Amino acid sequence: MSFSEYPSKLLENAVNEFASLPGIGRKTAFRLVLNLLKRDPQEVRKFGESIIKLRSEIHYCKSCHNISDSETCSICSDKRRDSSIICVVENIQDVMAIENTRQFRGVYHVLGGVISPVDGIGPADLWIDSLEDKVKEGVISEVIMALSTTMEGDTTNFYLYRRLSKYKVLLTTLARGVAVGDELEYTDEITLGRAINNRNPYQQ
Amino acid sequence: MSFSEYPSKLLENAVNEFASLPGIGRKTAFRLVLNLLKRDPQEVRKFGESIIKLRSEIHYCKSCHNISDSETCSICSDKRRDSSIICVVENIQDVMAIENTRQFRGVYHVLGGVISPVDGIGPADLWIDSLEDKVKEGVISEVIMALSTTMEGDTTNFYLYRRLSKYKVLLTTLARGVAVGDELEYTDEITLGRAINNRNPYQQ
Repeated sequence: MSFSEYPSKLLENAVNEFASLPGIGRKTAFRLVLNLLKRDPQEVRKFGESIIKLRSEIHYCKSCHNISDSETCSICSDKRRDSSIICVVENIQDVMAIENTRQFRGVYHVLGGVISPVDGIGPADLWIDSLEDKVKEGVISEVIMALSTTMEGDTTNFYLYRRLSKYKVLLTTLARGVAVGDELEYTDEITLGRAINNRNPYQQ
Repeated sequence: MSFSEYPSKLLENAVNEFASLPGIGRKTAFRLVLNLLKRDPQEVRKFGESIIKLRSEIHYCKSCHNISDSETCSICSDKRRDSSIICVVENIQDVMAIENTRQFRGVYHVLGGVISPVDGIGPADLWIDSLEDKVKEGVISEVIMALSTTMEGDTTNFYLYRRLSKYKVLLTTLARGVAVGDELEYTDEITLGRAINNRNPYQQ
């Protein structure tokens, strides 16, 4: 359907916005917009505001860089959790995946990605300095490197090992129950729970 | 992923809103929201506002009931179009589909659906009275019934024929180039263009 065919500029704007999302084509975007048009105006206003607020009001935890509604996330500020064990993950989906196993009672550190020269992502683009700062303080007993078992994940594990092995801290990785080549967030809960319980000392 | 696992209420709200759209599951909704989080706040604000405006500011043409940014839509207010020929369609997607063929220079009348006893949609739920009012005035020379060739479309054609055949107006239907059982909006442009050119007098 060509650009000029929409009977309304408002309709066209909304379709363009939805079509800018990953995996949403113009036909799908149009159907979503038509669905919104059938709804109560107040309900649609709530939808729009939830999007605006999401981006304008969301925080990232100043300690673990996980997404949060406040300066410090609910996991980092939970006194019942063991803040001396840090689980290093790539992104917030991975925090959610590990939380879902209910096997881990430490805290997290979200790197914000993995080292990937192909995509132009180097160590300086990730939250590695702030991780080293925490370890440097000497109160961390263990760092679990819970990265995907991909080439980029392995590279990042190796890099973290080189940065952190000079400190008095136990460096572990997830047990190799996670199939090689798998993305962490798609791993089933049982495998992932077992892998975090059977974590091993890091070996080069 | 269970409800309580989102690290932020703002995130959860936005995921819930996207997941309320047809064909969007919670996993997909989460990916869309993560995509928005990576964008510029101003860009995300524009997205949210486009949704709110869409519903709060959109008009329906008082003449043809097509979607519009003003009281009368751009097609009805176009002096170059022949307002004595009315093409009756089910919804705005069908207006767009026929406009795309560039074969029709009359105006439209959007019924807002078709008669469907199964779904509880009767003639009173559709814009049929306002169509009859236009025909009653005596300035309409032809009404093209361009409804889908489904059972509901045929029923509506028959009903419209009974309501309008008492007036001095030519009642036509799309040529049966449209395959029986097909939805109008998915018909290819050439078939649809041919069908509107070869329209035939209505036969019971």
